[in-house]
Amino acid sequence: MRIAVCPGSFDPVTRGHVDIVERAARLFDLLYVAVLDNTRKQALFPAEERVAMLREATAHLPNVCCESFTGLVVDYAQSRGADVIIRGVRSPSDCEYELQMAGMNRELAPGIETLLLPTSPAYAHVRSSLVKEVAVLGGSVDAWVPENVSRRLRERLQAKGGAGR
Amino acid sequence: MRIAVCPGSFDPVTRGHVDIVERAARLFDLLYVAVLDNTRKQALFPAEERVAMLREATAHLPNVCCESFTGLVVDYAQSRGADVIIRGVRSPSDCEYELQMAGMNRELAPGIETLLLPTSPAYAHVRSSLVKEVAVLGGSVDAWVPENVSRRLRERLQAKGGAGR
Amino acid sequence: MRIAVCPGSFDPVTRGHVDIVERAARLFDLLYVAVLDNTRKQALFPAEERVAMLREATAHLPNVCCESFTGLVVDYAQSRGADVIIRGVRSPSDCEYELQMAGMNRELAPGIETLLLPTSPAYAHVRSSLVKEVAVLGGSVDAWVPENVSRRLRERLQAKGGAGR
Amino acid sequence: MRIAVCPGSFDPVTRGHVDIVERAARLFDLLYVAVLDNTRKQALFPAEERVAMLREATAHLPNVCCESFTGLVVDYAQSRGADVIIRGVRSPSDCEYELQMAGMNRELAPGIETLLLPTSPAYAHVRSSLVKEVAVLGGSVDAWVPENVSRRLRERLQAKGGAGR
Amino acid sequence: MRIAVCPGSFDPVTRGHVDIVERAARLFDLLYVAVLDNTRKQALFPAEERVAMLREATAHLPNVCCESFTGLVVDYAQSRGADVIIRGVRSPSDCEYELQMAGMNRELAPGIETLLLPTSPAYAHVRSSLVKEVAVLGGSVDAWVPENVSRRLRERLQAKGGAGR
Amino acid sequence: MRIAVCPGSFDPVTRGHVDIVERAARLFDLLYVAVLDNTRKQALFPAEERVAMLREATAHLPNVCCESFTGLVVDYAQSRGADVIIRGVRSPSDCEYELQMAGMNRELAPGIETLLLPTSPAYAHVRSSLVKEVAVLGGSVDAWVPENVSRRLRERLQAKGGAGR
Repeated sequence: MRIAVCPGSFDPVTRGHVDIVERAARLFDLLYVAVLDNTRKQALFPAEERVAMLREATAHLPNVCCESFTGLVVDYAQSRGADVIIRGVRSPSDCEYELQMAGMNRELAPGIETLLLPTSPAYAHVRSSLVKEVAVLGGSVDAWVPENVSRRLRERLQAKGGAGR
Repeated sequence: MRIAVCPGSFDPVTRGHVDIVERAARLFDLLYVAVLDNTRKQALFPAEERVAMLREATAHLPNVCCESFTGLVVDYAQSRGADVIIRGVRSPSDCEYELQMAGMNRELAPGIETLLLPTSPAYAHVRSSLVKEVAVLGGSVDAWVPENVSRRLRERLQAKGGAGR
Repeated sequence: MRIAVCPGSFDPVTRGHVDIVERAARLFDLLYVAVLDNTRKQALFPAEERVAMLREATAHLPNVCCESFTGLVVDYAQSRGADVIIRGVRSPSDCEYELQMAGMNRELAPGIETLLLPTSPAYAHVRSSLVKEVAVLGGSVDAWVPENVSRRLRERLQAKGGAGR
Repeated sequence: MRIAVCPGSFDPVTRGHVDIVERAARLFDLLYVAVLDNTRKQALFPAEERVAMLREATAHLPNVCCESFTGLVVDYAQSRGADVIIRGVRSPSDCEYELQMAGMNRELAPGIETLLLPTSPAYAHVRSSLVKEVAVLGGSVDAWVPENVSRRLRERLQAKGGAGR
Repeated sequence: MRIAVCPGSFDPVTRGHVDIVERAARLFDLLYVAVLDNTRKQALFPAEERVAMLREATAHLPNVCCESFTGLVVDYAQSRGADVIIRGVRSPSDCEYELQMAGMNRELAPGIETLLLPTSPAYAHVRSSLVKEVAVLGGSVDAWVPENVSRRLRERLQAKGGAGR
Repeated sequence: MRIAVCPGSFDPVTRGHVDIVERAARLFDLLYVAVLDNTRKQALFPAEERVAMLREATAHLPNVCCESFTGLVVDYAQSRGADVIIRGVRSPSDCEYELQMAGMNRELAPGIETLLLPTSPAYAHVRSSLVKEVAVLGGSVDAWVPENVSRRLRERLQAKGGAGR
């Protein structure tokens, strides 16, 4: 049995993320989609809500398990018995960053490999940060995030008094 | 059972290639390392000799099968029952090319995924074309290719009257 | 009245090219789509046939004029009274090349501007050279080139004995 | 009549910006140069002062109108009847970002095109953020910003107690 | 006598930095390794401690002098009689940034050249920011920083209550 | 005494090359500008004529010595007692290639360092290959090459029957 983890911020999950998860889930027996709960980085959604949105968006995938983690990705991967870290890549500069991270993770945990999965061209321009920027400015983000995320995004921004500005 | 193919020119196989094959072989049940036999591109070694060198260099890997193929990579992958194409990436510009190829292959055969495996930092600067250039100019390439390849490279260049020039 | 030229090899024209031409045609009063007839570069199709395919593929655009040219792009642009050169860009490395060309063209003809038009994400991975490679290997290229080009490509490769190899 | 908008932070306007505006103004009948008034991003100059500096620097261009806007660029562009967004690009990584933004803007407002205008080589290394860094450290920025901006930059940094530090 | 300066944040110094300093020290008669004391950027270590760590790590290099500076790099270089700024580069995007900085520094001080020294492949993925991230998350960073830095990093993060989180 | 070599094709030398040579000559006691005489690559000018053009263009630099070489750059550098290879870089993709070459050369000859010198922004878009392309098409290249080269280029292309085509 081969187990993979797909770590990220997922703040919030986009249709590009879902596409990566769907494709990765076909390649491994068990796939953990893992929200990095980093207390030092300001996120729009708390980790639990990011996990909840991921679960809603991947409910149709039986071998996908969504959860949050703290600490190093390689430690988390080992705790799950995984030997593969999966990362989606949209562009050459994504790759440049991932090549560096893969180099460091390899020295931290030589038995764990990093695999890069190219994002589908249709989602190559979708970035969580830009999605939030558009949503804050009142634009529709339905094309880029699953329905449940679009609704939660509106609610959260209204709670923060951000939408319509 | 999950089957992957790792296609390339392998003209000749380098230590960087062997590193990628060793790591990919741990991630899949069966790995085909496949020499593209492209009659329109000038190669230093004929396809059969490239396959022979690959076999020597991967003899310690029981689930690796080396062979040559003609035609489209996706057709070859399907003929082997593979659902994954593995490609090593050394640098952002490698990635840029692979993202384009993955995009096209995905439209040719939607069921086959491309996974990019980052080259180990120790081999990130090793390229078959530069290896050949150094060998032709009489430099030692022992650090970059397996022993058997180094010997065959010398023989072939002597046969072509190229070494020492 | 503002006139633009959109120069290229178009060997052959792809759906990505057609998309660029359609969008550029809305931005200028008259758009010349110009095939560079470079006798020093080996092309699959002769310049006249490339122009013919472009005319078929842009027949629905009344303000588009397809023709071939020799010599410098800036000289050609000036001969048509154009003050803009339009180039489609798919990726950062496309841009790198275009920034250099724009720098040189600007010094050759300071009055002529280069404008880069981003390719639609759906076509960001389509390249004439890869299209030809796939066609030679017997793959279907219908997703990437207009119908008339697909047919001509098959005919030409059969004439050259290339398909099916 | 063709209308374009050239949006940006312009904090402050540089000679590179002015060069882009001058060249874009020749290509369109009316050009709006628009300061993004983003209350979530810390700017050195308030939006009104950035507009004032732009007006001073582009006073010689009769078909250029400087103003500020809030909200989405595409909404602003539509409010002005524009069908083109113009962005200056200095380098491949500028392009990478712009290709992503263009992809998102295209889906938000399919009728509006993004055109990238290569910065003149003489200004390819000028960035507002680096200009401010140099000015804060007491260096002369006269080569990179118009005269009026240089003066205002000194005044503002003195008011903030920043110069000479 | 030729004098060079090697400026940076060094927050903290890594084995990659030490490698660059060792190699640069062989190429010039005197090499100043200079910590930018930037009061506007949040650093983990105060400038004096960064200098102390550099001194410990370069104690074996007789022609290397470690110190801190404020203000512009080119002003500092001139104050030391240097005509060369040395910068290590790990990747194409490092280079892109350095090409811009070199362009600006050249206009600030035409007599001072910037030379880029490629990082050894073994350290190409080591970045101070990632080292700190790993250390905060409780991972071992011994492979990437000198021994003295590893110890100080642990102490500092304990003092800040950061380790183990 | 520190000796550097600046190797290249110089087919032909451009103003960008001369700028790099002038600046490098100030940083080292002796600078060899070395034309790679590669019999496997088609050059427009024979190696001797490329050396002659370099000598004319650098006649004002007393510590510069122009010559040709065959074989590996590192072997040539060692034969001249040099411990530095200088390479001009114009763009991130230039850097990417140079980082790979530097990695390989370092393993061939660990004592020899590669230093990258950023091209002046004014010449960042000048490439010998594009210069030749423009010259062949009858354009003026006076802005990009020294006077003597411009003349020789015209003569050679006339001899080959290339100009005016």
